[in-house]
Amino acid sequence: MKPIELTRQARPVTTTVDAINERGEIVPTPIAGEHPLTVYLDKRELVTLMTLGDAPEHLALGWLRNQRILGSIDAIAAVQVDWETDSVAITSRSLRDRGVSIWDLGADTPLSQGLDERMRHRTVTTGCGQGTVFGDLMDDIDALRLPAGPIITDTTLMAVMDQVRKMESIYKVAGAVHGCALLANTDPDPGPRMLRFVEDVGRHNAVDAIAGWMWLEGIDGTDKIFYTTGRLTSEMVIKCAQMGIAVLLSRSGLTGMGHAIAQKTGITLIGRCQGRHYLLFTGAQRFVRHGLER
Amino acid sequence: MKPIELTRQARPVTTTVDAINERGEIVPTPIAGEHPLTVYLDKRELVTLMTLGDAPEHLALGWLRNQRILGSIDAIAAVQVDWETDSVAITSRSLRDRGVSIWDLGADTPLSQGLDERMRHRTVTTGCGQGTVFGDLMDDIDALRLPAGPIITDTTLMAVMDQVRKMESIYKVAGAVHGCALLANTDPDPGPRMLRFVEDVGRHNAVDAIAGWMWLEGIDGTDKIFYTTGRLTSEMVIKCAQMGIAVLLSRSGLTGMGHAIAQKTGITLIGRCQGRHYLLFTGAQRFVRHGLER
Repeated sequence: MKPIELTRQARPVTTTVDAINERGEIVPTPIAGEHPLTVYLDKRELVTLMTLGDAPEHLALGWLRNQRILGSIDAIAAVQVDWETDSVAITSRSLRDRGVSIWDLGADTPLSQGLDERMRHRTVTTGCGQGTVFGDLMDDIDALRLPAGPIITDTTLMAVMDQVRKMESIYKVAGAVHGCALLANTDPDPGPRMLRFVEDVGRHNAVDAIAGWMWLEGIDGTDKIFYTTGRLTSEMVIKCAQMGIAVLLSRSGLTGMGHAIAQKTGITLIGRCQGRHYLLFTGAQRFVRHGLER
Repeated sequence: MKPIELTRQARPVTTTVDAINERGEIVPTPIAGEHPLTVYLDKRELVTLMTLGDAPEHLALGWLRNQRILGSIDAIAAVQVDWETDSVAITSRSLRDRGVSIWDLGADTPLSQGLDERMRHRTVTTGCGQGTVFGDLMDDIDALRLPAGPIITDTTLMAVMDQVRKMESIYKVAGAVHGCALLANTDPDPGPRMLRFVEDVGRHNAVDAIAGWMWLEGIDGTDKIFYTTGRLTSEMVIKCAQMGIAVLLSRSGLTGMGHAIAQKTGITLIGRCQGRHYLLFTGAQRFVRHGLER
């Protein structure tokens, strides 16, 4: 199979504007970029995402994946971002190789099976700020179960926190972004390894960009650790569960529904990770506490 | 005209779950609620919002307003939240008084003019985490201009910050929520007056809930101050501009597009409001700095 054609069209992540502080001084201040990115699949417009634009190809792929519009990356031939038109064109192998749009494949082909149905659900359940994946996904939560087993220790947790502290570059400079990280869990030696770190103006974008990268690289989530600076709402937990990631860490808190879904799917959810502190909320069977030097 | 029938179905804002801290101790921890709320307008399903559920009636109204699905609250007869079905049914006066659904009114009636068109735009431009109002709204930014004039002083700004600091109750208890406040700007005496404070798991929900409340109460935004704990992204600034609010304060930062829209519409945008510090980004013509005692 031919490789996927991929542009690499990252936008500059910050611009600097003048602000006036409380002393009346002019302060040049870096602020995070925000750009519309309209996603097309075989020329059909699907959505406009507002993004930092640092990983637009991965974002578009991950969005398609986490919305479950396409079940496999094998269906995709090209992902082409064009900031002149603020758009990303995703071309299916069907269109490229056979000249047949993915939308025109018979309903009985594996590729397009349920495509229209998923699109319909997407549009009616899409929310402002949340909810894009909510619709029929909640019905499928029962089918999602992450494998058990002790796969994270407090030593690893602290090592993860140390690593991500060093990584939050755009946030440190300009604020107004959330960061997500994917780490390989190789406790105790040599410790967790940062595979991917993405920041975006929306925490959902950051997790989608990681999902797209995992899809491209063929990386399985099962033995990985996911970290986010943002809150663990239902949508964040559902997306991670879909990606097969069993260990979620957040510097922030969680919501009742995030908690409930983590419990139901068997995810180990650790929130309020700050300094040496943390709160283990669910999935204790997967966590080993050695008790850290203080 | 008959008043609007309104339920008052707030959900409990927090629940308490057990967590295990770094010392292995069990810590009962309050977490914020998160509930799906599906919005129906004359029985047609529009969207599912994920919300704290503290002001669901106002949220649904404000969502309809800020999505510009309805241009006037006069079209609405009832807003009925039912948590048994996680839904809110909005009934038009047309349906209640004449038995004709708003969706079946002729395209030439003022009420339904452009309704389908707006719905179509909404669905294709709805994004994950952002973008619901983006579509044709950006085209209308040129038409939005907030009136000028010096309407906020640094003394008022500090008084606002003092007031909101005392108000962030759910955040203080459970985190994982954003707060938005609307204040009357009556500088210098008796100082700003808190009109409304709303917290929600999404900052877009919080601003929508304030928009819905303003609609219900007939409150104009022109002479008001809007405060949010969240970032000022494009969508937040657009919503405030639509509500006619010329002064936006945030404890957090802003994005490039938030900045650009504030500049274009003439909004006074002040970010990084923390303690005695702030950064005035746009709309300096509306800001008077007395220079504060330090």
